[in-house]
Amino acid sequence: MQGRMLQRPAESDPAAHAARESVDIAAAIADVRQFIDPLLEEAVNGLCHAPERLRESIRYALLAPGKRLRPALALWASDACGGDRQAAAAGAMAVEMIHAYSLVHDDLPAMDDDDLRRGRPTCHRAFDEATAILCGDALQPLAFETLVRHLPPDTAGRACGILAAAAGAEALVGGQAEDLAAEQATAETDAANASPESQLARLEQIHRCKTGALFLACLRLGGLTAGASAEQFQALETYGEAFGLAFQIADDLLDAEGTEETVGKRVGKDAARGKLTFPSLVGIDASRSRAYALAAEAEHACQIFGTRGKPLATLANWIVHRNH
Amino acid sequence: MQGRMLQRPAESDPAAHAARESVDIAAAIADVRQFIDPLLEEAVNGLCHAPERLRESIRYALLAPGKRLRPALALWASDACGGDRQAAAAGAMAVEMIHAYSLVHDDLPAMDDDDLRRGRPTCHRAFDEATAILCGDALQPLAFETLVRHLPPDTAGRACGILAAAAGAEALVGGQAEDLAAEQATAETDAANASPESQLARLEQIHRCKTGALFLACLRLGGLTAGASAEQFQALETYGEAFGLAFQIADDLLDAEGTEETVGKRVGKDAARGKLTFPSLVGIDASRSRAYALAAEAEHACQIFGTRGKPLATLANWIVHRNH
Repeated sequence: MQGRMLQRPAESDPAAHAARESVDIAAAIADVRQFIDPLLEEAVNGLCHAPERLRESIRYALLAPGKRLRPALALWASDACGGDRQAAAAGAMAVEMIHAYSLVHDDLPAMDDDDLRRGRPTCHRAFDEATAILCGDALQPLAFETLVRHLPPDTAGRACGILAAAAGAEALVGGQAEDLAAEQATAETDAANASPESQLARLEQIHRCKTGALFLACLRLGGLTAGASAEQFQALETYGEAFGLAFQIADDLLDAEGTEETVGKRVGKDAARGKLTFPSLVGIDASRSRAYALAAEAEHACQIFGTRGKPLATLANWIVHRNH
Repeated sequence: MQGRMLQRPAESDPAAHAARESVDIAAAIADVRQFIDPLLEEAVNGLCHAPERLRESIRYALLAPGKRLRPALALWASDACGGDRQAAAAGAMAVEMIHAYSLVHDDLPAMDDDDLRRGRPTCHRAFDEATAILCGDALQPLAFETLVRHLPPDTAGRACGILAAAAGAEALVGGQAEDLAAEQATAETDAANASPESQLARLEQIHRCKTGALFLACLRLGGLTAGASAEQFQALETYGEAFGLAFQIADDLLDAEGTEETVGKRVGKDAARGKLTFPSLVGIDASRSRAYALAAEAEHACQIFGTRGKPLATLANWIVHRNH
């Protein structure tokens, strides 16, 4: 699978050339992690009046192994606009908190019922179900509090608005609700009666909500804290929308083709659940072409930032070529 | 029980005289409900891109029967400081959203496992467990979004900070975690080894977090949106702390002494669960005296507001004399 994703003909992928001459993305992602994890750790330690077990569950969820993609997007969006890293860090931490909460709740028995996440027991397995529910419930306000604590009040107000919209019933939570409903519908073979076009539209809508909205919020928060111009903000939004969908298609491809060892979580589970995915709807090749085209679109949007936009541009390519 | 709570000697309760000559609290509470419910309904209807089932679960939870005590506190705190009702409404809606979410999650099988709430099936019984989890998860960001939508950015930023702190691991969520842990400890008779003083201190700490912090946030938000002076803000905080504890003691008394018919929910359940309560620790009479003293303290704090503080003052008395 890895070979197949990497060994595509260069001419079919206009982004390949740019990717070759750009930043070392693995190192850049490691840098982000090294920058943001101590700040996340500090935020958890700051909860000194919280019950210990609850605080440790928050630490477990928030500092889990992971790529810190969302913080990277927020920080690099700010970098692209010449923003200050300290201000951008507030947004970066907040989006990771919302992401961490959503994983904890998605894994619950009443939801996706997963025992493993990134090779470790999920929060409700490592602690217990009540603690996992409360852990997620506490991570949400912690995200908003983080924005308020680290940003001037008016910026914090706008940042809270961006984050709340991305986390709400019309975005992240709505996407998870739709995803569960779609899974049920597929299981009941209702979906078999729908046209492939309408199924694809529904799938894109689910991902736009479930994962895309929070990615977009990363870009918006990075732009906001950096004081982006209207043109820069627009470019970040274009990037964010394309990136979000590209990420999800790549994720579906990994589930369809990856091995548990390289991916670090259970694979093939989408198919086992009869879950709607891009490969199941349009096939592996068309899914891969679409992901490459979206990555190219995202990269194109970064042009107005010049060299400052390199990390974002490179990330968009990397995300569709990764094998984990 | 009703008779006993009402027929105490007037001289033992310095607040009684003031309460008699003050506002018609039942009518005032009904007014708040009439003012705030259409706004809450509007907020739910505004979620037009949310999946229908999720939106209906939010409506079910948010517009449930209830006294709208928290909105009343936010609105009356604003009134006390001469604030504008429209600005205060944002805070009033937001606290009710956080309150509604916390009830939905507290009722879940993994938490308190309740089937009935205010005489109706709880959210996970009326819908399903996944929807109830998502309903609560969506109400949290809706609360923050409501503040941002209706307030100027800098006020919204401060308001989000107040709300986030009250909803977080060191307050509401932490209190629920402690409450569950205390229940387990009582069940395991660990608690029997603790001194009554330390048990009482723990109980007060649980309530200060679990219900007190959100009450306090109502007062703070009302003061914030009204542009309260430092002195007014301090008075609102004194009121809020005393009110919160008085409310909880009264709630424990209702559970210990009320009937299901008057209270509208299962009673005697605290004792059945071996739950730590004020009556179980210090007895009925001492609990009642403490509640009256706290109500008097809350009422006293309202003096600086003159007649504008009457609704708050009257509410503090009403809360410890109610029978539902």
